[in-house]
Amino acid sequence: MESEFIDWLNTQLSQQSAEDCGIGDDCAVLPAASATAIQVISTDSIVDQVHFDTRIHTPAEIGHKALAVNLSDIAAMGATPSYAVVSLIIPNHWKLELVKELYLGILDLADTFRTQIVGGDFNRHAGPLTVSITILGNATSTELKYRSGTKYGDAIYVSGPLGGSIHGHHISFQPQIALGLELAKCPAVHAITDITDGLVIDLASLLTDALGAELNEDAIPLRDTIANRSDAIHSALYDGEDFELLFTVAPEFELDFNSTAQPTSIQRIGTINDSGEITLVASDGQIRQLSKKGYQH
Amino acid sequence: MESEFIDWLNTQLSQQSAEDCGIGDDCAVLPAASATAIQVISTDSIVDQVHFDTRIHTPAEIGHKALAVNLSDIAAMGATPSYAVVSLIIPNHWKLELVKELYLGILDLADTFRTQIVGGDFNRHAGPLTVSITILGNATSTELKYRSGTKYGDAIYVSGPLGGSIHGHHISFQPQIALGLELAKCPAVHAITDITDGLVIDLASLLTDALGAELNEDAIPLRDTIANRSDAIHSALYDGEDFELLFTVAPEFELDFNSTAQPTSIQRIGTINDSGEITLVASDGQIRQLSKKGYQH
Repeated sequence: MESEFIDWLNTQLSQQSAEDCGIGDDCAVLPAASATAIQVISTDSIVDQVHFDTRIHTPAEIGHKALAVNLSDIAAMGATPSYAVVSLIIPNHWKLELVKELYLGILDLADTFRTQIVGGDFNRHAGPLTVSITILGNATSTELKYRSGTKYGDAIYVSGPLGGSIHGHHISFQPQIALGLELAKCPAVHAITDITDGLVIDLASLLTDALGAELNEDAIPLRDTIANRSDAIHSALYDGEDFELLFTVAPEFELDFNSTAQPTSIQRIGTINDSGEITLVASDGQIRQLSKKGYQH
Repeated sequence: MESEFIDWLNTQLSQQSAEDCGIGDDCAVLPAASATAIQVISTDSIVDQVHFDTRIHTPAEIGHKALAVNLSDIAAMGATPSYAVVSLIIPNHWKLELVKELYLGILDLADTFRTQIVGGDFNRHAGPLTVSITILGNATSTELKYRSGTKYGDAIYVSGPLGGSIHGHHISFQPQIALGLELAKCPAVHAITDITDGLVIDLASLLTDALGAELNEDAIPLRDTIANRSDAIHSALYDGEDFELLFTVAPEFELDFNSTAQPTSIQRIGTINDSGEITLVASDGQIRQLSKKGYQH
């Protein structure tokens, strides 16, 4: 993401309407007649050689990822997925069998999360495979979780191990829809996002005004594939595409997720403060300031 | 469009749900709690060297077209556009100024048709510029017009001149939202689509079962840029991307569009019959059978 462009765009879009539609959050929120039936929408495209590699990944894996990244945005709002549309831009040389395999990857995951594919577009060109999906979801207004909900003193949690997603997790991950819905029901949960650009960058997106955060190195869960590396903590802080949920919770509240599928993988990794910075309490006790810029994928 | 793939996909998607969501129509129709507030959705991507040419067209023109093709699908349902999301895939070498110009082309047209851009995605890659837009619209269930509404004996109308869109109309056209809404209010209008693949192909998409159509060569309006060419009628029948509305009307009904912006450009070009074929009564009185296959763009 190019922050200058996003700032410019937000200004343009805010001129278009007086309503706050959640631009800059994981999904846009559509104004609705009823507070009990809010609709959210999000769009994400994935492109060969940027988000996947057709020399390594199967068409079904690519289809899975294309929908999974969109479902992850729905999870990050605490919403329930409903409908999606799929726009495929296929290389000229791709046989129809490959296109079908890709689509089956989408449909398998759609079935798992009861998301109905209701339309699409299909084009061929001389360039790279591109899969663009737009997803709709439902929520009640009291349950929706915005990034801006973060409060001073909140505990910071992450839903699973971080870092090294590039070694396979990024293509095969399961979106955290069930956890998102459970968090949505809980008023003590103040803000949710999914980790796409990296822990530090996405944590920064939860911090408005003078809010800051302190992370504890020893508490940050590391993915197995990187856990033994000397730069493991750097990977966990800055690698992108973890697609775990990052959320903040009122400090007095005790999380109890007995009903979720993966309760034991949730970790408290830090605390929201008013420093305006993100710092890390390293394993050796030293406190380091972390750059909010991170790395682009 | 590859018809084998579309057939396969329709089968897959119909297995996913018992509901008829309008797959294969210009928009998908989402089941709604209320018949007075139906939501429709459509997605269309445009790609450099397929739907436009960055060596010829300005970023603003490309942005305009990206939204216009989506609005045209909304017009073809007789719906009112509401929200859209925009996914941009930008060549690595594009300066941010160009991206902004492109977005302003989108926003100008969005303002004209009161379509609110509520979200988006932004990526860079080594490949061609790709703009993928998903649009939502509103309609009442009694007003929505499906392609399958065509009836035996209907008069066939087109909203404006056809052929040679490639010479400029395809990039700068204004979507026929106002006419679509007017047609939607009229129960005698049985079916609407927009001409994207070419008159004959899109007319074929209005014909279910044994229905056929007879077109009158002398009645088909020709775009100025091709009118004097010897193959003008071939262009009008088979060139794509005219983005005019093609619609069928009960034969006893007299169209009266005094309130529309372009009432004089609407032409009656033929009649629905039960031949199962599309034929042309040529200027010389001869009847020719037309191939439904046409040309790909």
